[in-house]
Amino acid sequence: MKNLLSMEYLTNDDVMAILERAREFENGAEPKLNRSYYVANLFFEPSTRTKTSFEMAERKVGCTVIPFEAGFSSILKGETLYDTVKTLEMIGLDAVVIRAKEEEYYNELLEGINLSIINAGDGTGQHPSQSLLDLYTIYKEFGRFEGLTVTIVGDIAHSRVAKSNAIALRRLGVNVKFLCPPEWAGDFEAQHSWNGLLEESDVIMLLRIQHERHDVHFSKENYHQQYGLTIEREKQMKDHAIIMHPAPVNRDVEIASELVECKRSRIFHQIRNGVFIRMAILETILKGR
Amino acid sequence: MKNLLSMEYLTNDDVMAILERAREFENGAEPKLNRSYYVANLFFEPSTRTKTSFEMAERKVGCTVIPFEAGFSSILKGETLYDTVKTLEMIGLDAVVIRAKEEEYYNELLEGINLSIINAGDGTGQHPSQSLLDLYTIYKEFGRFEGLTVTIVGDIAHSRVAKSNAIALRRLGVNVKFLCPPEWAGDFEAQHSWNGLLEESDVIMLLRIQHERHDVHFSKENYHQQYGLTIEREKQMKDHAIIMHPAPVNRDVEIASELVECKRSRIFHQIRNGVFIRMAILETILKGR
Amino acid sequence: MKNLLSMEYLTNDDVMAILERAREFENGAEPKLNRSYYVANLFFEPSTRTKTSFEMAERKVGCTVIPFEAGFSSILKGETLYDTVKTLEMIGLDAVVIRAKEEEYYNELLEGINLSIINAGDGTGQHPSQSLLDLYTIYKEFGRFEGLTVTIVGDIAHSRVAKSNAIALRRLGVNVKFLCPPEWAGDFEAQHSWNGLLEESDVIMLLRIQHERHDVHFSKENYHQQYGLTIEREKQMKDHAIIMHPAPVNRDVEIASELVECKRSRIFHQIRNGVFIRMAILETILKGR
Repeated sequence: MKNLLSMEYLTNDDVMAILERAREFENGAEPKLNRSYYVANLFFEPSTRTKTSFEMAERKVGCTVIPFEAGFSSILKGETLYDTVKTLEMIGLDAVVIRAKEEEYYNELLEGINLSIINAGDGTGQHPSQSLLDLYTIYKEFGRFEGLTVTIVGDIAHSRVAKSNAIALRRLGVNVKFLCPPEWAGDFEAQHSWNGLLEESDVIMLLRIQHERHDVHFSKENYHQQYGLTIEREKQMKDHAIIMHPAPVNRDVEIASELVECKRSRIFHQIRNGVFIRMAILETILKGR
Repeated sequence: MKNLLSMEYLTNDDVMAILERAREFENGAEPKLNRSYYVANLFFEPSTRTKTSFEMAERKVGCTVIPFEAGFSSILKGETLYDTVKTLEMIGLDAVVIRAKEEEYYNELLEGINLSIINAGDGTGQHPSQSLLDLYTIYKEFGRFEGLTVTIVGDIAHSRVAKSNAIALRRLGVNVKFLCPPEWAGDFEAQHSWNGLLEESDVIMLLRIQHERHDVHFSKENYHQQYGLTIEREKQMKDHAIIMHPAPVNRDVEIASELVECKRSRIFHQIRNGVFIRMAILETILKGR
Repeated sequence: MKNLLSMEYLTNDDVMAILERAREFENGAEPKLNRSYYVANLFFEPSTRTKTSFEMAERKVGCTVIPFEAGFSSILKGETLYDTVKTLEMIGLDAVVIRAKEEEYYNELLEGINLSIINAGDGTGQHPSQSLLDLYTIYKEFGRFEGLTVTIVGDIAHSRVAKSNAIALRRLGVNVKFLCPPEWAGDFEAQHSWNGLLEESDVIMLLRIQHERHDVHFSKENYHQQYGLTIEREKQMKDHAIIMHPAPVNRDVEIASELVECKRSRIFHQIRNGVFIRMAILETILKGR
């Protein structure tokens, strides 16, 4: 695997190999890289968990991380992303992790660039490392995908997490359902009320409301009452069902603040799992160089 | 010691143990940590010396430092400090060093957070690592605290350095005096003229005027003439007396520019001492994990 | 060599020693430093290639890099550059790499500062590490300097690259010519048309148009037609002649986009060469401490 760009390009076998390797890392396996690779993290949008998680995973697999301040780079002088990435390649980088506002920004990097590209989020496009850690969280919980029901709740149309996960989960045999306000369904077939979903779902996967991204304004209270996971709704969930959220959480909007660390919540487990997943991604890609 | 939050929580024995360990580090002792701990520096306010000093001390005790750009983190997306710090814990951090604008920001981190927190300044609250390095500078100079007279000059009410030091110095037997404009005394009993202070003090500890923090505007010249350490005043100091300042210095405001590196000045020595103190703080806290 | 400030202070022998050492590094030589030196990169202007290149070179010669966020430092609180650099010295830094807007900013650092200073660009002044990598690129290509003709094209008056290179190249026996709009010649004797230059030059060295730096506004198309290296002009170059540009490139302004990676172009080679040159600079300076 040269790059990790979109869940669409991964087969089920690719996915399962990464999940299994993440599990080995979680159980203490040592990384199998035969030299110290040079990587940089190009985050053109603010991020805490994805960036920090990659920084940690990179060090844990033995990479040397070259700092890159996106907000203080030559992109500000009008340099193209291609020229910036080609520059990093010439400086000796083996791989770059990129988050950018533009959907499929990576298309301009597919020709002429030899270093590996790991997509850490492209606008409203894809977020494959988040998707893989979500899959890992589900897999650890249930030991399988086939036959599970996962309900994704929130701004489906604009969420790269929803898109990445819908593709991967369905291909793995999961029954994926959507719940959102009518304006946010996009091309997905979605329900607009919780009716039946709490009782059927093995996983309730909440998405972050990105107030900065759309015009439709719900008050936070209204959204919480209609689409949020309230304290009452949590009680109607199946016994073994779990709650997921990619975070950062808007407390008392997507989910009642009291539920963020409740027994069913895997929100902080997802973050922990992310490091093992990213170690597996990095090793897989760098080993192939 | 799990956290370092405020000088109020340290006993004299805690303080002396850190000073002695700093002295060992200054004399070439090796750190006694049995693995590489992961730390991050969360500076939500600009800083050169405190941040760089921690970065250096962390490396010198063998930590792996995970970069965190406070100005480009999910705090911008409205994430709570609790959720950010909990996230870093799940990613595998052992300790975080935090500077923030809000006084006692750390109160929301005392429950539910397992990583260690080192307070590098909370608004007008406390700045314990600065206080410890100030104590170390005095201790190295005089070999004792008992019976010394230290005069703190400047914006006492809003200075976390003044507060941290007043608590610690008094408990160690130092006679602490204050000099400031009437508006800046806060709850402290302060003199408003230099009368007698130069002749009595073993240490003149100047504070930085934080032009951004208050409405009362002195011209820089007026402040220097009334409350600054002028070239003339320096000549009236006791033979062995020293000058301290946490820096950054406003030259020719708190102190005449010519005095910044004069024989009595310990201003740059304080910075050097800070690295040993922070090594001792980090080792003490991480060893206990 | 304690500092690297300007090409004016380097003899031809100094230059050749650095080029030869860079060549050894390119051929796989190991750095000869007997301990891990501490360095920091203080970039007060945005930069991708120079900063990242130094970050890489520092790690390759075994330095420990202490991060410094220029846009979030005490310089914002009005601290002088002298006090910032002296602070870093007291914290234990051995060398700092500085880029700043002010020409000859380093003059205030020559007295009282003991750490080494590497100038990574001072306003419209000098950019010696760029000059050395340009020299290395030419030297690798032709095996000599004597008798070559190099034409520098662009905003000569405001370009630190042009100044640094003009000094060094002439001293090494190169015939240096200039091409620019009349307003941008400064004190240099320059041609204002391509007349004859393409046929004579062994190297066409293009400079970046810094739209932010001057009032004279050419449209991009006009500049390209009059002074740019167009597809037609490239065909008139001598057989073995090469194209150089310090980058970032304004595509279709200084050079036709199609030519950026053409056979004659050494633009990305320059970037690669920069890492070896900076390793040689760092080793030369740190070895002398």
